[in-house]
Amino acid sequence: MISTHKTVIGNFVTDDKKIIDSQEFSSLKEYNDSEKSLKKLIKKHKKAKPATKESETVLRTALKDQKYFKSFRDQNILLTKQQIKDSVNNDDLIVQTVSNMSELDITANTLSKRLREWFSLILPELDKGVPDHEKFAELVATKNKKELLKELEIKKDESMGADLEKVDIEEMKLLATQILGLYKLRDTHELYLEKIMKEYCPNFHAVAGTNIGAKLFEHGKSLKRLACLPASTIQLLGAEKALFRHIKTGSKSPKYGIIYTHYLVQKAKRKDKGMVARAVANKLSIALRIDFFQGDFIGDDIRDKLEKKFGYKKTNKSE
Amino acid sequence: MISTHKTVIGNFVTDDKKIIDSQEFSSLKEYNDSEKSLKKLIKKHKKAKPATKESETVLRTALKDQKYFKSFRDQNILLTKQQIKDSVNNDDLIVQTVSNMSELDITANTLSKRLREWFSLILPELDKGVPDHEKFAELVATKNKKELLKELEIKKDESMGADLEKVDIEEMKLLATQILGLYKLRDTHELYLEKIMKEYCPNFHAVAGTNIGAKLFEHGKSLKRLACLPASTIQLLGAEKALFRHIKTGSKSPKYGIIYTHYLVQKAKRKDKGMVARAVANKLSIALRIDFFQGDFIGDDIRDKLEKKFGYKKTNKSE
Repeated sequence: MISTHKTVIGNFVTDDKKIIDSQEFSSLKEYNDSEKSLKKLIKKHKKAKPATKESETVLRTALKDQKYFKSFRDQNILLTKQQIKDSVNNDDLIVQTVSNMSELDITANTLSKRLREWFSLILPELDKGVPDHEKFAELVATKNKKELLKELEIKKDESMGADLEKVDIEEMKLLATQILGLYKLRDTHELYLEKIMKEYCPNFHAVAGTNIGAKLFEHGKSLKRLACLPASTIQLLGAEKALFRHIKTGSKSPKYGIIYTHYLVQKAKRKDKGMVARAVANKLSIALRIDFFQGDFIGDDIRDKLEKKFGYKKTNKSE
Repeated sequence: MISTHKTVIGNFVTDDKKIIDSQEFSSLKEYNDSEKSLKKLIKKHKKAKPATKESETVLRTALKDQKYFKSFRDQNILLTKQQIKDSVNNDDLIVQTVSNMSELDITANTLSKRLREWFSLILPELDKGVPDHEKFAELVATKNKKELLKELEIKKDESMGADLEKVDIEEMKLLATQILGLYKLRDTHELYLEKIMKEYCPNFHAVAGTNIGAKLFEHGKSLKRLACLPASTIQLLGAEKALFRHIKTGSKSPKYGIIYTHYLVQKAKRKDKGMVARAVANKLSIALRIDFFQGDFIGDDIRDKLEKKFGYKKTNKSE
């Protein structure tokens, strides 16, 4: 019996005992386009039939020949590399960007705390006066002590800060500038993320917004996985600790995870929050599935209906 | 008996029963210059003697009068603020700078790891090829994929990295630039630190070098405290964990802490390291005491003698 075979190093035709014809590939491209050449081969051997268990055993024995070893290994490595290369997609980009945003938040916080302690040598009053880290760094980077005293409405004598030399202050200003850079990079990432998500999962983005959407991606790792999750799981993503505590000790079950920060949940009354979170999670789940199967864009409709249902006024929509 | 008294709100003269004369201060400056005015007061009351326990009781009773309360409180607050202001010194600047350098190291590391993971989507081979974080960030920030492939001597087909769009790569480049900024700031801090230490503790700096000196400051918190420490403690600063394990469980005692990275200890043979560390710590202790009592600069002599003792060649001195 004559059979045709497709392998990573070439197409082969075998009879009951040995290889009787072959087309060996010299590059991965030929393997990728091998359907055509296989058809040609089948035309040439009119009697050939698709491979069976028996004919495969024949081929395998024949391929044990030393001369195939190297090309088998090389082609397989190339193929694997190709597959790794092709596996990079928007999921990876989103997850990496979100992770980096979290990382940037943490580092900016750490350095801000250091800056506050350091700058307190000069002007301890600024620490309490300006609770926002980014604003604090901006003030330190751009203003001198005199201007800051004016801003805080403190007389020079009343401040507990030492009068340091310019060279000492310069180091703090440099640190403040670096911190501002980190915050700025975070904002750039957010814009970039918005752009990707609007293309990749427009419905999901319309309902969730950039921030919450990205955080859900960080937990779910990919659109496919997120689309496969039940709505109740989406509702609780990010509340794993509370959930497992609930399962283990019988404490109250959590009502929301990451979507707690969704603007609709935020605006809801305390007793309604659980219900709103459930509704939002339901719609997110639907949106994710539409996106995964590349359906039409109806994200705005979904969001509008949700907003109407919970009496949310359009005017102060900012998410 | 007539006595003179100096308080934070003014100079007072009392007889056996009450205040008979006073100079009240209207500002902290007058209090700071009160020696002069006190002398005038003493001249005026020729019979006046320094305050005794009895006369102080008289004054204290007199000052219970309501009218002194507010000024007492205000002057004391001002005085405390003044003292806080004056307490800022080079110790604080050094400790803050060193702490920030450690912080910068940590954050730059964290972000570098993220960059490596992220950039591996494009060119996974670069991660292994360039182990140094700073160099890695520099390459990502300044070169494009083609140049990097050339640098790594990899053919385009052999790379496992995906070909992403420019907008995607841009975000990674921005992150790399931020990381470079953090490393640059660290270097600036180091130069600044060197400058302060050369002024504030030149002998210590000459023997220890900037890096080790700064780390010892981070542990000792101030020149005074460091100067008060015995040499054996300086030898073990930074090895607290091993020391307490030794005390608690009787395991081997540590031979060196931070000074393990000192170039003389580094160059010593394994079995000599403990001895060299002890000698270095001894000299550091001497240098610290000279600096604290503001003695002459003999740091270079101390270091030369140490180097000679352990046969260290001058040529490759870089610390």
